Amino acid sequence: MDFETTVFEKEYIELGGRREAIVRGGRHLFDRLPHALAGVGQIGVIGWGPQGSAQAQNLRDSLNGTVKVAVGLRSGSRSFEAARAAGFREEDGTLGEMFEVIAASDMVLLLISDAAQTDLHEKIFATLRPGTTLGLSHGFLLGYLADRNETFPAEVDVVGVCPKGMGASVRALYLQGAEVNGAGINASFAVHQDVTGHAVDRALAWSVALGAPYTFQTTLRSEYLSDLTGERAILAAGVHGVVESLFRRYRENGMRDEEAFRLSAESVTGPISKIISRDGLRGLYERLSEDDRSVFAQAYAAAYPVGLELTHEIYDEVESGNEIRSVVLAGKRLGRFPMGKIDQSTMWQVGQKVRGNRAESEIPLSPFTAGIYCGVLMAQVDTFLAKGHPYSEIANESVIEAVDSLNPYMHARGIAYLVDNCSTTARLGARKWASRFDYLLTQLAYPAMDQGAAAIDLAPFTAFEDHVIHDILRVCAEMRPPVDIFVE
Amino acid sequence: MDFETTVFEKEYIELGGRREAIVRGGRHLFDRLPHALAGVGQIGVIGWGPQGSAQAQNLRDSLNGTVKVAVGLRSGSRSFEAARAAGFREEDGTLGEMFEVIAASDMVLLLISDAAQTDLHEKIFATLRPGTTLGLSHGFLLGYLADRNETFPAEVDVVGVCPKGMGASVRALYLQGAEVNGAGINASFAVHQDVTGHAVDRALAWSVALGAPYTFQTTLRSEYLSDLTGERAILAAGVHGVVESLFRRYRENGMRDEEAFRLSAESVTGPISKIISRDGLRGLYERLSEDDRSVFAQAYAAAYPVGLELTHEIYDEVESGNEIRSVVLAGKRLGRFPMGKIDQSTMWQVGQKVRGNRAESEIPLSPFTAGIYCGVLMAQVDTFLAKGHPYSEIANESVIEAVDSLNPYMHARGIAYLVDNCSTTARLGARKWASRFDYLLTQLAYPAMDQGAAAIDLAPFTAFEDHVIHDILRVCAEMRPPVDIFVE
Repeated sequence: MDFETTVFEKEYIELGGRREAIVRGGRHLFDRLPHALAGVGQIGVIGWGPQGSAQAQNLRDSLNGTVKVAVGLRSGSRSFEAARAAGFREEDGTLGEMFEVIAASDMVLLLISDAAQTDLHEKIFATLRPGTTLGLSHGFLLGYLADRNETFPAEVDVVGVCPKGMGASVRALYLQGAEVNGAGINASFAVHQDVTGHAVDRALAWSVALGAPYTFQTTLRSEYLSDLTGERAILAAGVHGVVESLFRRYRENGMRDEEAFRLSAESVTGPISKIISRDGLRGLYERLSEDDRSVFAQAYAAAYPVGLELTHEIYDEVESGNEIRSVVLAGKRLGRFPMGKIDQSTMWQVGQKVRGNRAESEIPLSPFTAGIYCGVLMAQVDTFLAKGHPYSEIANESVIEAVDSLNPYMHARGIAYLVDNCSTTARLGARKWASRFDYLLTQLAYPAMDQGAAAIDLAPFTAFEDHVIHDILRVCAEMRPPVDIFVE
Repeated sequence: MDFETTVFEKEYIELGGRREAIVRGGRHLFDRLPHALAGVGQIGVIGWGPQGSAQAQNLRDSLNGTVKVAVGLRSGSRSFEAARAAGFREEDGTLGEMFEVIAASDMVLLLISDAAQTDLHEKIFATLRPGTTLGLSHGFLLGYLADRNETFPAEVDVVGVCPKGMGASVRALYLQGAEVNGAGINASFAVHQDVTGHAVDRALAWSVALGAPYTFQTTLRSEYLSDLTGERAILAAGVHGVVESLFRRYRENGMRDEEAFRLSAESVTGPISKIISRDGLRGLYERLSEDDRSVFAQAYAAAYPVGLELTHEIYDEVESGNEIRSVVLAGKRLGRFPMGKIDQSTMWQVGQKVRGNRAESEIPLSPFTAGIYCGVLMAQVDTFLAKGHPYSEIANESVIEAVDSLNPYMHARGIAYLVDNCSTTARLGARKWASRFDYLLTQLAYPAMDQGAAAIDLAPFTAFEDHVIHDILRVCAEMRPPVDIFVE
């Protein structure tokens, strides 16, 4: 994989012995955006969900009037009010009915929900003018079309720019980037169809305008396979199942509720994530005392096989099209069976109390919790490696998105809150798979731990020590702006 | 649906206001079997799993030499030894290599695993002689073929006889039937293709020879939809998830481990199942004191919506083909990731101890546990009703198979034992869905219970009181032989 850009500086980085072409971002590049977007009179951002609202505002602010950014919504949508509050207006043509905005735009960023994309894609495709650049932030629609043996219209560009973080992070870090040049969420980009010959530069301009510190290349198919798998594994479902199982285990071992919560959920979303973010996975391990390292190694080795089995299952389900069909079927049931919230169970009620009395410095770094979490996380890394994903995608979709975007949100508001408030596709996936991680850890990993060190094959941990991920994360960390996301 | 038989007595029964044609079984009918099997010189039973071994022996014993019963196994299979121990012999042609047995049989009962059926079906189809009657005990293969737009060979009969109980029960109750005429496991039958004109009588003869107290009619498609859904819902995964969630809840409420186990798992597989088996679901309710009835009603009403949502999801996944594809994909992973056992977790370790010291008469009939279990069970009944399944199929696949076959086995050996030892398809399903029942009950039903009576809409329980299932179960109970399964 490689690409050519005449506007931005392509740079080769060396990740774990492989070369990848990337583009670094930053505010100093914003004056190149009009050139990269030559021929684009209007960018239509369709939808006002977390990604739509964040991206529309970032694009408008970065382009600063050089290219018009218009928001398109379903007629009658309740989001008109919110878009107006953010400064988009019917009067100046920066806000309107979605199909009118699509017809009037040279670049159409389709950021409506997956369900809306599958429902409306025929009409949307029919509305795109030849030569339009259709942009996606997620390859779901490609997976849906592929499963039905359908394709995108032949006469348009199809590109993806996929921020490796939730919409709220895309906006929050961009705003923090006003003070610290380059703060933002990394993004992958993919050129699926290029009829204009400008698809690469348009996609890169989009990514730079969002504030991505660096943009790496992938394919739309590779993107949706890793994205859907990632949110069903360590990014959301996995971390949810891991902490539920740990919380229960700590209570079974006699801990009080608050203490069990601190050692499980708080430890993951707090110190464990912060240390990984700055010092990588090996940095986390090296932070531990000698005794704690041995606990970490055993917990890691016990959890890794469980994570590997489940992440392979999830990947198979995504790749076969089962998971996409499942999301579509679930969408049809939601009217009758709306998704309930998960935050009423004992654990999350305890969590609310714990967060209310939180002293950040007193949150323990549990070596057991760290080992279990990292074992499940590394199982995802190895699944993606086995399936041939680009190293940047693996690092971002398994580690960086977790510790720099999602976990900090979970830390501020609770894991249950994040699961209850993410996209429908992610939320369905989290509800479907979290309990699987919980059960398999409880059935296999913890009983092995209780049988003592001899019952655990340490090979997975040995492989961890010299794993290629450490070099990949080291290089990624060098490109990371020196600012943490701030979440209220 | 209806059928014609010249050999057995077709009888119409009135179930919940609907008429269904059935055939009652019994040992007094065994002398009619040769007539019903006219033209069949040999029945080949392919496979020595739980169904294969049970059915081969029941058929041989019932036919008593009038029609040859031969067992066919993969060459080199370790099951040759077990088949020999049960009296099948290469020397007299009652035991042999599977394709040789298939080629030599006029009726081929394909009782190998689902994975083997999907792997080998092309060669098997090519080996069947025109005019052979192909028999299945489960519609999985039809679902698999339908998903691939394939069909059975046109020149053979295709029939299903599907005992509504596990293989071990099919044999155990048949043996008990030597003392009590008609003891056995009910079966459904389906004629999918009839090229010989004898398909109905051959299928009925098969069912009668297995010892089915009564045989009701369905289609192969209706069978696999209800069978796969049932084992993923209340029959295996559902009951597993229900008792895991209850055990945790009782412990959280301060109960000791043994007490929590008795009130959850023991109560379901013991008194609750026994009472339903003899007196139906309303009989269970009426057994309760006034106060307990109110607890039952609330628990039922809180659990039912959770059960309904999940059972609809499972049904959609089965009907769409997702679940079958998922089983096939999982089969390909099993070499690398063998299924772990679930019986090492705390709950099942406690269970082992409790069963060891069990005093049957001291197992409590918990109204809370009964309400939760019945709510989830009735959600399956209502899902099948909504999907238009025959009443006999609904009653057998949701209630009778549970309380007369599976739950007694679970009671003797543990729910975890049953899940760890059922068919690969059922085991995969139980592992996939049990935790979903657990999580949704914990997230939605129990918090509602804790908020008090006002938080619960009693409508589901009101619908239960006059539900059509009670009349269906009453009629089915009249046909039930007066013998309980005995499990060591």
